[in-house]
Amino acid sequence: MSQGVTSTEVFAQRMARTREAMAERGIDVLLLSVGLDLPWLAGYHAMPLERLTMLVVPREAPATLVIPRLEAPRVVERPEIFSMLPWNETDDPIALTARLVTSVGARTVAVGDQMWARFLVDLLAHLPTVSWVRSVEVLGPLRMRKDDAEIAALRAAGAAVDRIAAQLQAGEIPLVGRTEAQVSADLSARILAEGHDVVNFAIVAAGENAASPHHHPGSRVIRDGEIVLCDFGGTMNGYCSDITRCVHIGTPPADLAAAYAVLLEAQQTSVASAVVGTPCERVDAAARDVIAAAGWGEYFVHRTGHGIGMDAHEDPYIVSGNTLPLAAGHAFSVEPGIYVPGRWGMRLEDIVVASDDGPDPMNRVNHELVIV
Amino acid sequence: MSQGVTSTEVFAQRMARTREAMAERGIDVLLLSVGLDLPWLAGYHAMPLERLTMLVVPREAPATLVIPRLEAPRVVERPEIFSMLPWNETDDPIALTARLVTSVGARTVAVGDQMWARFLVDLLAHLPTVSWVRSVEVLGPLRMRKDDAEIAALRAAGAAVDRIAAQLQAGEIPLVGRTEAQVSADLSARILAEGHDVVNFAIVAAGENAASPHHHPGSRVIRDGEIVLCDFGGTMNGYCSDITRCVHIGTPPADLAAAYAVLLEAQQTSVASAVVGTPCERVDAAARDVIAAAGWGEYFVHRTGHGIGMDAHEDPYIVSGNTLPLAAGHAFSVEPGIYVPGRWGMRLEDIVVASDDGPDPMNRVNHELVIV
Repeated sequence: MSQGVTSTEVFAQRMARTREAMAERGIDVLLLSVGLDLPWLAGYHAMPLERLTMLVVPREAPATLVIPRLEAPRVVERPEIFSMLPWNETDDPIALTARLVTSVGARTVAVGDQMWARFLVDLLAHLPTVSWVRSVEVLGPLRMRKDDAEIAALRAAGAAVDRIAAQLQAGEIPLVGRTEAQVSADLSARILAEGHDVVNFAIVAAGENAASPHHHPGSRVIRDGEIVLCDFGGTMNGYCSDITRCVHIGTPPADLAAAYAVLLEAQQTSVASAVVGTPCERVDAAARDVIAAAGWGEYFVHRTGHGIGMDAHEDPYIVSGNTLPLAAGHAFSVEPGIYVPGRWGMRLEDIVVASDDGPDPMNRVNHELVIV
Repeated sequence: MSQGVTSTEVFAQRMARTREAMAERGIDVLLLSVGLDLPWLAGYHAMPLERLTMLVVPREAPATLVIPRLEAPRVVERPEIFSMLPWNETDDPIALTARLVTSVGARTVAVGDQMWARFLVDLLAHLPTVSWVRSVEVLGPLRMRKDDAEIAALRAAGAAVDRIAAQLQAGEIPLVGRTEAQVSADLSARILAEGHDVVNFAIVAAGENAASPHHHPGSRVIRDGEIVLCDFGGTMNGYCSDITRCVHIGTPPADLAAAYAVLLEAQQTSVASAVVGTPCERVDAAARDVIAAAGWGEYFVHRTGHGIGMDAHEDPYIVSGNTLPLAAGHAFSVEPGIYVPGRWGMRLEDIVVASDDGPDPMNRVNHELVIV
């Protein structure tokens, strides 16, 4: 369950900053289970199963990891960070957790965003007077600022998917005559072969299917003369990659080529705007304005990007209404798209890290609509 | 997003039975998002991301699928089952959901067990007077009773992992000199090659590591003269496989062989006890009694089994205290184990379906401790 880029010292620093953030926001206890808050804070992934794992972090008392006894041997113990409370098959781990919460007189409790709702429903019955808030209020701002080791991990994952995109652009990944699902499986195998531990997604969308931004690759056979959108990524040493490139099979029609030129300008303008201090919504507007000015505004139907780190999507979101100013260490996607229902779609995506030296792209592979 | 074994007619029947169960339990609205309740009921998998997908099922009004507009094209529309309410990037989908709940005057709402807690925390603020319960109260008893198509899917997945276990027992999967992690990756590749869509887990634990029931395969090199426990499974056409077999490299020591004979008797006694009408806890006791009588009771540290279907673990649980009588169509694992910390561990697992003709095993590959 190694994170690859973290040590006990790092976890101790994160725990101290977490308790400071809890104090600032009046949060008495933080509860973390399934999801990536727990590995970020304590280096352990809860198994996504029905037996409860719960890290109980009181603001002013030591943290306790409530864990199924049969999973306790999986834990790398870090006594500086938390003690262990293993429970047996016939114990009630919700009651154990609730007692730890009430023992510190907690009134406001933050719960992990991706914790299963079943555990919260059960806790509601034990803790009827508690006010509940989301863990992202505490951990979002902390997880958002990546340290040097985290940026190195994002860069390595980005370089890995860049190599796959280069294979795609070089025509080394057969397309014509294969189904989207076959190409998706091929990309997935390459994501693992290039060093990722897990495939998170491998969208392959051909022709009119590319107009569906989250298309599920299916039995549609890829044909000569069409655009193929590939959006893929995985997790490597605990950190995510995410890239989108489109290729065209044969020479594209003039209108499609013109639209791609607009998309490329929009994406590069948006990346260039992502300097420290710029509000996230301005980075979104930078892409949107270029696309709208060219008359394609109604076909850019989603936000420009999402934060990335241990989670494939996390803060900060590059979206209208998000006034958060970018800070050094913020990592996020810049991925405008143009989608014409029934005809074609296109998207161009890089991961970028805001730095004091300007926007630092994690993806550098050719941004053009390469003809294959 | 096909389920492989379901049609719109089946979904309509499930929806009708769900509403009957809601009426029996006084539940006004059912809310389903991430997790497998939603594909079971409506044939759609919500993407496990921050944009909310929520099926709102009032007991006495039509169901509505609240869905991000950019994911709407992924949905196989089933107007007989639900209508669609796509939301735009700057809408508030929690407010949309809350309005659908209040529009029917709901007082008791069931939420999907595996929904992300963040969505429930946000709903709590909108719906402060609602009583919350878990979806499993409604859907658990329904999902537990597998129909013929579901049993066929479980049987196909079981046959696939049986083939891999046979490869293991035939010595076709190299062990000595490889790490647990390498063998785990090898098993994972075979799980996909034998027709699964996803690998759920591939535990490989050698020697003393086998004493950790949920061991995470690591850099430990497998050596001559030790036991290797392999517990693996995936999802095929929407339904899960799960099998455990142990092999021994060279002739096992007499005490280990004797313990395995006890384990084998315990597992087969437990399987034989799993007839319709028997309480789940009796199936647990059937295995436990054999192991305890042989003096190994303290080393069998977990329940005997878990239900299985679309989820790798679901109702019914084969555990002390569960008085639920087995019914035809209940599918579950029977997997006793003996774990001696610091020395070795062993487990033997089949999936079994209760039927009117007696226990119907989904796994039939050799149950002995095969020497490789």
